[in-house]
Amino acid sequence: MKPFAPRLDLLRGRVDLNHGAGGRSTAQLIAQLFEPALRNPLLNTAEDAAVLPGLAAHGPASAAAASARLVVACDAHVVSPIFFPGGDLGSLAVHGTLNDLAMMGARPLYLSAAFILEEGFPLGDLHRLARSMGDAARAAGVAIVTGDTKVVERNKADGVFITTTGIGILDAELSLASSAARPGDRIIVSGSIGDHGIAVISRRESFAFDTSIVSDSADLTPLVRCVLEAGSTGVRVLRDPTRGGLATALNEIAHSSQVSLQIREEALVVKPQVHAACELLGLDPLYIANEGKVVLICNPAVAQAVLHAMRQHPLGADSAAIGEVCAGEPGSVVMQTRLGGWRLVDWLSGDPLPRIC
Amino acid sequence: MKPFAPRLDLLRGRVDLNHGAGGRSTAQLIAQLFEPALRNPLLNTAEDAAVLPGLAAHGPASAAAASARLVVACDAHVVSPIFFPGGDLGSLAVHGTLNDLAMMGARPLYLSAAFILEEGFPLGDLHRLARSMGDAARAAGVAIVTGDTKVVERNKADGVFITTTGIGILDAELSLASSAARPGDRIIVSGSIGDHGIAVISRRESFAFDTSIVSDSADLTPLVRCVLEAGSTGVRVLRDPTRGGLATALNEIAHSSQVSLQIREEALVVKPQVHAACELLGLDPLYIANEGKVVLICNPAVAQAVLHAMRQHPLGADSAAIGEVCAGEPGSVVMQTRLGGWRLVDWLSGDPLPRIC
Repeated sequence: MKPFAPRLDLLRGRVDLNHGAGGRSTAQLIAQLFEPALRNPLLNTAEDAAVLPGLAAHGPASAAAASARLVVACDAHVVSPIFFPGGDLGSLAVHGTLNDLAMMGARPLYLSAAFILEEGFPLGDLHRLARSMGDAARAAGVAIVTGDTKVVERNKADGVFITTTGIGILDAELSLASSAARPGDRIIVSGSIGDHGIAVISRRESFAFDTSIVSDSADLTPLVRCVLEAGSTGVRVLRDPTRGGLATALNEIAHSSQVSLQIREEALVVKPQVHAACELLGLDPLYIANEGKVVLICNPAVAQAVLHAMRQHPLGADSAAIGEVCAGEPGSVVMQTRLGGWRLVDWLSGDPLPRIC
Repeated sequence: MKPFAPRLDLLRGRVDLNHGAGGRSTAQLIAQLFEPALRNPLLNTAEDAAVLPGLAAHGPASAAAASARLVVACDAHVVSPIFFPGGDLGSLAVHGTLNDLAMMGARPLYLSAAFILEEGFPLGDLHRLARSMGDAARAAGVAIVTGDTKVVERNKADGVFITTTGIGILDAELSLASSAARPGDRIIVSGSIGDHGIAVISRRESFAFDTSIVSDSADLTPLVRCVLEAGSTGVRVLRDPTRGGLATALNEIAHSSQVSLQIREEALVVKPQVHAACELLGLDPLYIANEGKVVLICNPAVAQAVLHAMRQHPLGADSAAIGEVCAGEPGSVVMQTRLGGWRLVDWLSGDPLPRIC
């Protein structure tokens, strides 16, 4: 990423919606405000989850215990509306955090859940969300082990916000990292892009239009297990393209790995209804959030095996190889259009769809 | 606790401020809505932190790894105002969660932090809060390892909310639990009560009055280590009397342990300014939140040693034995007043001070 100019104005600046969009402004806020303030050797802001040292480092345990590396991920969920086609805030709060663990190759074990409620929020809706969370957690084989509930006055929140923190464990010698992409590696996406964002926006009052699109919100852990079984250490990077969409995930990888990514527009799967909605709203599906897709970078030697394994899984039936890693301009993402030209795929700037997750 | 009557109305009911006050309404919301929805064998809503099985249960590790029990605690922090005498939302978000870990006897290792920001919030204030968090975490020897930032539109939040999840480890064979109090045990409190709540309320616009009271917000881990070194397994219960104050913490213990707790009013330490503010506002210091105090139940054989150790520590200089556990009416808390009479100390009902933590 290019240096941020101008610098964040800590004297007179104010938070705007872009700071929460997952693009350049979010990265600037993290780099110039949170990182210096919270600085410690374990804080790694390049990933959505932290891989921690073996627990043996912390107390009287055997050397074998050192192999049990914890992975921790945390997500605040503020999606609006809270119920949308294909999901709701409750299941999303489970899937979103589990997927951050899955992207490090972790097996999820536990979740914590904190609810910030607005006075007047219907208990029936809260009940529906809580049951949806419980169902999603049980389906994923994880336990919600602790939580908290706070209530604020009317107009001091928006119904309900749910923050979940996930704890998983890394068994094997995996070292997935967004900095691990190498020239020659292949880029694979597990299916269609933009479904979640368009499903949510279709239910938002100000954007009311009809669509049959449902959110792809799902726990990606089982798909990731297939990927890692098929590709083993040939899999370098896993990323779920949520806020900011596929374009943002690819830019993060290109930046962290200091490589150039080249993708082909014709290889991308965009459902016709998503395409139509994007046309109508002036949006680009590359920047629309997904909640049940993974983009991965792997060694070309394992690419076919990985793609084959993914297509056998229901969550990866439409998987496609969309491009490759090159030694071009470090940090750049370029796309060959359907017409054969090349287009720069920049970081998200601005926030086309606030409160999408 | 007596059965809740009437039952929570999941059809027409709405969230009110009492549901977040930490008293009977919060307990009812947890028991009748969250517990059934999220049900799993590891969810223990009687404590503010979950003690999890040894990690060896989850994968290929040696028997020794089984001794490494994880402890997880989670708190959403919505205090208003965000800056108050003696602390701020940032340090409070660290202390609050670390203290939940400490109450299980855990050594804290890691924190996650999720920020929900309102559009328009000053970046300077966010910077101040983040630095305060970083300072509090480093002082406690814990690392903030991962986080998330979301932004919502104006009037859809209130400046900033911070949710932290803490992960700690339990080395020893401790089994602290609020159900472990036994008749004959002693009750000790680590100092004055009500300081935090009165400090916060003193800065709230609608309650503007002058006081020199500062919040007691502090990391209790070092004090708890002294307690456990002095009292070992003779220490049965540790609890930080936050929302709902000392009265609520004692009621929770009496309920979980099915015992009666008897305390003496004259043994309680209430600072004169806190007493005066409570008189003015019609509040009872027993129900006012603390953020740097511990109430503990211990075997009488270790009570003197524990009290002595606590008084040596700066956070426990004013520690006092305030009563004992009896075999009376299970779940009851009674207080001998200064005049010699007895008064029932009931659960908090209503919320005298919303958004205190």
